[in-house]
Amino acid sequence: MTQKADTKFKREAKRGSHDFKLACEMLDAGKICHVGFSLDEQPYVLPMAYARMGDQLLIHGSIASRLMKNLADGLRCCITVTHFDGLVYARSTFNSSMNYRSVMVFGTARPILDADEKRQSIQVLVDHLMPGRRAELRKSTIKELNATSMLALPIETFSVKCRTGPPEDTKSDLDTPVWAGVVPLQLTAGEPVDAPDLLPGITRPDYL
Amino acid sequence: MTQKADTKFKREAKRGSHDFKLACEMLDAGKICHVGFSLDEQPYVLPMAYARMGDQLLIHGSIASRLMKNLADGLRCCITVTHFDGLVYARSTFNSSMNYRSVMVFGTARPILDADEKRQSIQVLVDHLMPGRRAELRKSTIKELNATSMLALPIETFSVKCRTGPPEDTKSDLDTPVWAGVVPLQLTAGEPVDAPDLLPGITRPDYL
Repeated sequence: MTQKADTKFKREAKRGSHDFKLACEMLDAGKICHVGFSLDEQPYVLPMAYARMGDQLLIHGSIASRLMKNLADGLRCCITVTHFDGLVYARSTFNSSMNYRSVMVFGTARPILDADEKRQSIQVLVDHLMPGRRAELRKSTIKELNATSMLALPIETFSVKCRTGPPEDTKSDLDTPVWAGVVPLQLTAGEPVDAPDLLPGITRPDYL
Repeated sequence: MTQKADTKFKREAKRGSHDFKLACEMLDAGKICHVGFSLDEQPYVLPMAYARMGDQLLIHGSIASRLMKNLADGLRCCITVTHFDGLVYARSTFNSSMNYRSVMVFGTARPILDADEKRQSIQVLVDHLMPGRRAELRKSTIKELNATSMLALPIETFSVKCRTGPPEDTKSDLDTPVWAGVVPLQLTAGEPVDAPDLLPGITRPDYL
């Protein structure tokens, strides 16, 4: 299931790109990221919701969270967004692979302290995670804003990697009488489930 | 989109579990993980394929990979597997959330050097990632085995977190005339795509 050792660097170069536009496309297509950081020599990787606001990645959490405090204080981090696009069935174990798109963003995050910017960044987050939803909800209260820590990581130092397309088999394997190809994978929404305490008469909104 | 600050610790306790069986269930339900580590004070988070072999997590890569060498040499890491299960539409931005299941495994990985164990671990990996496939493929060659670095991380120090169920709204929001509930999400396989150089007459196997 690996790449060949002797083609690794070529392959990585082929798969790598530092194109900001491409990074933004990949970031905009996802809703959860993995945030990596180290505390006392121990690495941690946590799943979090995120959104892109221009050339910054937004993450949020409770103001009481030790992690959010550490990140706001300048703890270096890496935020990675990955789309798992498919399983690549080659004619050998060795050339079998996965199709994916992934962006790693490196740096230190800045706490968003200004009330207007904080409110705006929360709106960007909601619009990204639940498009159409915001118009239906009440405004966040001051108490809620104060309980929320919002961080912005600049999309400046980043790395884009992906694998796409069919399997790449060793020539001598090509006449193996076995199926080869790709099984595409996609995160798919199922039928919405009403909250048990939903008010009577309320129907599912179109934006679902 | 956050939890309330004053309920954070209770909430985290409710969501946390150190149950090995639960961790294994979550691990067995996924195919990609995010591997976190730090090099020269900079954290990295990389997506990788994985499988569970008993009480160990297996990852693999090229023998030429600097990362695999560093991990084999005892670089501490965190491997996180996350299932993004749904969007939780509450009656406020603040209580909106996501359903997810996530396992973080901490420690240092051991390189699998013994040829038999290496072959076995590759089989476990293939059987996990592409069930049914292995019987159709030729055995890996010695050259391929030698080009592959296989690492095992013990599932000893780990943390399980999840959020499930309907939105939990603030009492005063419950009479807001807006839809509330969960939109479930699932990674779904699409129609397989034949390799362009597929031999004529070969049909798609049942295990797809």
